Amino acid sequence: MKAGEDKLVERIVEALADKGGPNLALGVGDDAALSRPRPGYEIILTCDWFLEGSHFLRSKHSPDSVGWKCLARAVSDIAAMGGQPKCFLLSLALPQTLTGRWLHHFLTGLRRAARSFSCPLAGGDTTRRDEILISVTVIGEVRAGEAIRRSGAKPGDLIFVTGRLGEAELGLRSLRSGRTQRGRGDLSLKKHLYPEPRLALGQWLARRRIATAMIDLSDGLSSDLSRLCAASRVGARIAIGKIPRVKVLGGKASKRPDATELALHGGDDYELLFTVRPNRARGLPAAFEGVPLTCIGEIMHERRLVCVGPGEREGTLAVRGWDPFRRRE
Amino acid sequence: MKAGEDKLVERIVEALADKGGPNLALGVGDDAALSRPRPGYEIILTCDWFLEGSHFLRSKHSPDSVGWKCLARAVSDIAAMGGQPKCFLLSLALPQTLTGRWLHHFLTGLRRAARSFSCPLAGGDTTRRDEILISVTVIGEVRAGEAIRRSGAKPGDLIFVTGRLGEAELGLRSLRSGRTQRGRGDLSLKKHLYPEPRLALGQWLARRRIATAMIDLSDGLSSDLSRLCAASRVGARIAIGKIPRVKVLGGKASKRPDATELALHGGDDYELLFTVRPNRARGLPAAFEGVPLTCIGEIMHERRLVCVGPGEREGTLAVRGWDPFRRRE
Repeated sequence: MKAGEDKLVERIVEALADKGGPNLALGVGDDAALSRPRPGYEIILTCDWFLEGSHFLRSKHSPDSVGWKCLARAVSDIAAMGGQPKCFLLSLALPQTLTGRWLHHFLTGLRRAARSFSCPLAGGDTTRRDEILISVTVIGEVRAGEAIRRSGAKPGDLIFVTGRLGEAELGLRSLRSGRTQRGRGDLSLKKHLYPEPRLALGQWLARRRIATAMIDLSDGLSSDLSRLCAASRVGARIAIGKIPRVKVLGGKASKRPDATELALHGGDDYELLFTVRPNRARGLPAAFEGVPLTCIGEIMHERRLVCVGPGEREGTLAVRGWDPFRRRE
Repeated sequence: MKAGEDKLVERIVEALADKGGPNLALGVGDDAALSRPRPGYEIILTCDWFLEGSHFLRSKHSPDSVGWKCLARAVSDIAAMGGQPKCFLLSLALPQTLTGRWLHHFLTGLRRAARSFSCPLAGGDTTRRDEILISVTVIGEVRAGEAIRRSGAKPGDLIFVTGRLGEAELGLRSLRSGRTQRGRGDLSLKKHLYPEPRLALGQWLARRRIATAMIDLSDGLSSDLSRLCAASRVGARIAIGKIPRVKVLGGKASKRPDATELALHGGDDYELLFTVRPNRARGLPAAFEGVPLTCIGEIMHERRLVCVGPGEREGTLAVRGWDPFRRRE
């Protein structure tokens, strides 16, 4: 299918756009979009690359999952501030040959995500390119003064994570090897392809002022904990045994990926990591809307990352999460 | 120079960031940025690709000009709404080999643009890639109800353009051929490399409610006039002889590019095209802060594009501006 740029924009708008819904004064189709801020709220801004070859593979990742995930990962940054998404901008570069079926399924996944997160398309830019390039900007809002930053953790605060870590990394490995796991395997594949940003929990933590600092786990626990600690000018001690981790089943035991390694350094989980003063932590439920909340350690004054166990042995936590400038994928 | 992603972000932040200036509650370094909207204002949102090979060439365009232009072209969309930029997000993908000198000069040009437009960096995303990929999101503001849309043109409105058209296209051709023009040539090169979004004029037109519709000329007069007319559900009649156009000098007359063609279909000028009711047009100055304002035609009820002249001959205006999905550059 041949499509000029204006035709392509029309198709995207048809599939996605909210022409001035409650969040927007003016949606797609002008030089820029207009959004009405609510009095008493701050605007949250974030953008995320999603690039073929770097973040997904055309041959392995369905266009539907690419559509869902490109928005979900940017929305996760809004969740990590305790905010609610308002709308998004889509920068999309595509080969001419993908403007038919591929685009259709991509837009289907993206539309489902946009509805699920109450985050309509507000605008964007399209161009032609040999590879699929996506950059998503999400605009969110949070009540003034309630946003949860990375920088508020204090010594003595307890460290919590949501969900089970390492699942998305396991899902990625199954997808690459072409072997999906029995039983739990499909769940980890789902987590890799269709991550669920923890919006409701983030907002709950922000409104009740429970969390002192928060970050989403996009690059892996070790990398993201290290970032939260750097921003807060503190260190952390975590208990390896307490980390809720993916269950690895099937295959020879010797060939199975190590669940602890997956949980410490695997990326793309989009769970939340947050810190809580001990007196507030007592009132925390064990799960929020079905998502487990687990205490894995505490913040300390000394600025280093310590992991404890197995067997009470202490060591330095290596920071080995995803870094595009450090390793070739 | 080897740099992990966090180090790279640090360098960008050092060069550019406004850590919570008057526009920002929280700048770079968290999951997302926070911005305080001013009461009575609407937020303007726009994003723009700037891709090596598609929008610039590593061998021809200096990193300094790439830095300036990637922001200038996105800011031009804010100008076209009559708004003022508040801050921007930078999505940058780079080869490891360009994280030294190239990045330094890129950030220098970008910083100059950010200061010139009063538009500080608020956040972004970086990754590694074989080619330079840039997507810029600009967040602007405009008093509620004052934004100038594409859709407000009415039959009888006069059509104005700013500056001289076709200059940037001529500059691009000089740059590609390696021959810069004598005299005016440097000006068109400057226009191609360092475009100046018409922010002050856009805001003046919005505040005084002079323009009924407006668009910036990014893809060429024929394409962008066609978009404004489509959004307003009207047609236009323009006089070829009235279009302020680039002066083409030097070389054999037979080999000189045609100035009218450049003015009608050349992209990247980032001038403004706007419409004004005839009774308001009488009061318009011939120039605004040194930038000429020229009436080139009028809006008509019949939904087609007509060009008149030379010699009063009427024809259909072909829409042949830049379209990445129609032609290979």
